[in-house]
Amino acid sequence: MAEHNVTVENTIKVLLEDKKYSTLKDILVTMNGADIAAVLEEIGEEKTPLLFRLLPKELAAITFVEMNPDLQELLIKGFSDRELREVVDELYVDDAVDLVEEMPANVVKRILAQADPQMRKEINEILQYPENSAGSIMTTEYISLRPQMTVDEAIARIRRTAVDKETIYTCYVTENRKLLGYLTLKDLLLVKDDSVKICDVMDTNVIAVHTSEDREDIAQQLSKYNFIALPVLDSDDRMVGIITFDDAMDVIEEEATEDIEKMAAMLPSDKEYLRANPFEIFKQRIPWLMLLMVSATFTGMIITGFENALAAMVVLTAFIPMLMDTGGNSGSQAAVTVIRALSLGELEFKDLPKVIWKEIRTAVLCGCALAIACFAKILLIDRLLLGNEDVTVLVAAVVCMAMALTILVAKIIGCMLPMIAYKLKFDPAVMSSPFITTIVDALSLLVYFALAKALLIG
Amino acid sequence: MAEHNVTVENTIKVLLEDKKYSTLKDILVTMNGADIAAVLEEIGEEKTPLLFRLLPKELAAITFVEMNPDLQELLIKGFSDRELREVVDELYVDDAVDLVEEMPANVVKRILAQADPQMRKEINEILQYPENSAGSIMTTEYISLRPQMTVDEAIARIRRTAVDKETIYTCYVTENRKLLGYLTLKDLLLVKDDSVKICDVMDTNVIAVHTSEDREDIAQQLSKYNFIALPVLDSDDRMVGIITFDDAMDVIEEEATEDIEKMAAMLPSDKEYLRANPFEIFKQRIPWLMLLMVSATFTGMIITGFENALAAMVVLTAFIPMLMDTGGNSGSQAAVTVIRALSLGELEFKDLPKVIWKEIRTAVLCGCALAIACFAKILLIDRLLLGNEDVTVLVAAVVCMAMALTILVAKIIGCMLPMIAYKLKFDPAVMSSPFITTIVDALSLLVYFALAKALLIG
Repeated sequence: MAEHNVTVENTIKVLLEDKKYSTLKDILVTMNGADIAAVLEEIGEEKTPLLFRLLPKELAAITFVEMNPDLQELLIKGFSDRELREVVDELYVDDAVDLVEEMPANVVKRILAQADPQMRKEINEILQYPENSAGSIMTTEYISLRPQMTVDEAIARIRRTAVDKETIYTCYVTENRKLLGYLTLKDLLLVKDDSVKICDVMDTNVIAVHTSEDREDIAQQLSKYNFIALPVLDSDDRMVGIITFDDAMDVIEEEATEDIEKMAAMLPSDKEYLRANPFEIFKQRIPWLMLLMVSATFTGMIITGFENALAAMVVLTAFIPMLMDTGGNSGSQAAVTVIRALSLGELEFKDLPKVIWKEIRTAVLCGCALAIACFAKILLIDRLLLGNEDVTVLVAAVVCMAMALTILVAKIIGCMLPMIAYKLKFDPAVMSSPFITTIVDALSLLVYFALAKALLIG
Repeated sequence: MAEHNVTVENTIKVLLEDKKYSTLKDILVTMNGADIAAVLEEIGEEKTPLLFRLLPKELAAITFVEMNPDLQELLIKGFSDRELREVVDELYVDDAVDLVEEMPANVVKRILAQADPQMRKEINEILQYPENSAGSIMTTEYISLRPQMTVDEAIARIRRTAVDKETIYTCYVTENRKLLGYLTLKDLLLVKDDSVKICDVMDTNVIAVHTSEDREDIAQQLSKYNFIALPVLDSDDRMVGIITFDDAMDVIEEEATEDIEKMAAMLPSDKEYLRANPFEIFKQRIPWLMLLMVSATFTGMIITGFENALAAMVVLTAFIPMLMDTGGNSGSQAAVTVIRALSLGELEFKDLPKVIWKEIRTAVLCGCALAIACFAKILLIDRLLLGNEDVTVLVAAVVCMAMALTILVAKIIGCMLPMIAYKLKFDPAVMSSPFITTIVDALSLLVYFALAKALLIG
């Protein structure tokens, strides 16, 4: 797809140079909003407004929504009030909210001034819901039907009001804003007798969410039930909006990105990598690096404590990195598996004993396999091949025992910490690889030196 | 939601004990397939078939699709041929394919024997597409319209055939299996004049994918354009099926899980953690642990090479873990950021110079900040607080210079390797934290010892 865009982009550039605006318009109307937005982002700031003005109203709004905030701001600043109103008029409420959240205050003021009063009211309502809540990502433009309508009347109503609705494929039956049931458009079209009442064909087993619920949980529910939309209720159980599958998809991707960033010891950012400047990336990455660097003081202290033993047998030092890395990798395998299962809802805190028992058995398998392989490797490569005479069979045995024990400890800690964090309502992803590595490092050194002292030096 | 299930589950258990089947039936029909499947998974193997048989046909099929493969197999083995046929009849083709892929050969034989000939043919066709291709996740049950139909006729056709279609909300206009255009049901209902021909209102700017395309790319496209479904063409450009948003959502989640697993040095698995036995988990985790353990031979060799220097100044050993961990964390931050941006399509190989330049500037910021903090920490904590006299200002300087250099190297390697893997058509996620850690470990030791030799011992 990307390569396809590049070609169109070049054509568009040449046509722009040649001022062939009517040809350009013909090309643009055959394209999708997301693709036009990608071209606009590449084409250079001076040309963007020119190209954007060639778009018909509806396509302009779709394209506008797909652009990055910098470009949106640039365009709005160049818009006349009338142009701005035309774009805002075409936006769905949830997209207008996203826009308002991204823009600086003076631009927001202009946007709200151009929105019609009803939309302005709805934008302001949605803006009051906390970040990452269901309320903050819902839209108020859904189809509502009355229970006493006939199928015929319902279809007529849908056809009359569809144009302004984000989705018409799930319709909600309400009375005094109370949600009584729902009906997919497919169900509605499948009713053979058009004079049947809606209340007789609607599904009263409605799954609804509340405005305050976490957007990630809601996305998971939408994905679990394969719904196109979920209704959102306020604290008095009155229906206030819907969340549609496309927003849920974005949430699933964003939350996965956030989890991945946290697992790699970064603060989450919602800015695309290429658009973030080095200072922003620095701010995202430095806090954990700093914390982990300071906490490495413990490993340093442990090594200092065994300084004399190490001075007596320097060969022991050579295996420190391998032990630490294997421990860290083992621990993060367990941690990451558990974190992901928690965030997909496959695991609950009550499963902790099962999880620990599973990890212990896995650790025994991994520990034995690695210890045997490591023993062979040390004697074959380090001793025979590289001819290091200090590497005795006993040294190899100590290293391998330390490794097996480290793996066991690492797997247990790796699976426990995220589950405890989850129970304490912290984000489990924060208890991830780098954090666990630091703890496992210290423990693996303690195990290693204790064994070495007992068997080699003591 | 989970807690809600638990309550219903208890009620159901009690009612089962008391053999109140008609009450049970009344409860089950108010529930969703996904929730019933969750209850069945908890209720115990002996009771599952009993409970399942209480479900009306359509709900039984929906529930069946949501259950885990072990339970599906158990049920099928207890089914009579007639019961099996009833469930298979209600399945959509893509769900039937998923089922066939999960079941052992003898069960597959029974399933195919009970499927009607048309469905059997379609299942076999889809089974031939490679794993993870668009063909393998599509369904053949879509609405196709003819270009010469009127809007009236099209709506009538949709109402007549809707019951067997996975989605009716996007309709495809075909002639001799060539895809001419598409039309959403919303567009269709918005046409004011019912006698207009479909070819005059359809959108001919169709975005379609081919059976051989990667399912992840397709899920990204669906999410980018906010489509409910995408049409799938065969190699002769004939339309053979559609991919719907719910499957795309599952793909997005599965691919994120796979990426996360690869980043944490595991082979991807499509089995839920709680359902996998320790030996399966072991097989998923041991290959990378083994490889990384063996490759740690290099770090061991480097340390052995500097054995004499280390014996002379054992204090240097104490800072090895901190240097290695900081390098590893810095490198994996860069790697993970790039891997995620690549898999979301935000980055291309041609961006490599931009990426490297961004990482260099970020590394300088992180390196300076950490080196200064580390210098203060070493002198304040290690020297003053812990009273370690061996930690001189010069030692602290060497450690901090080594750290800043390590961060620079780690960030550059961390961003480059995934991009190179991407260019060579390998999966970038494999070039992730543990792999990069191993390389960065070796390099950080080389830098550290070289500086120590030059400034402290040389």
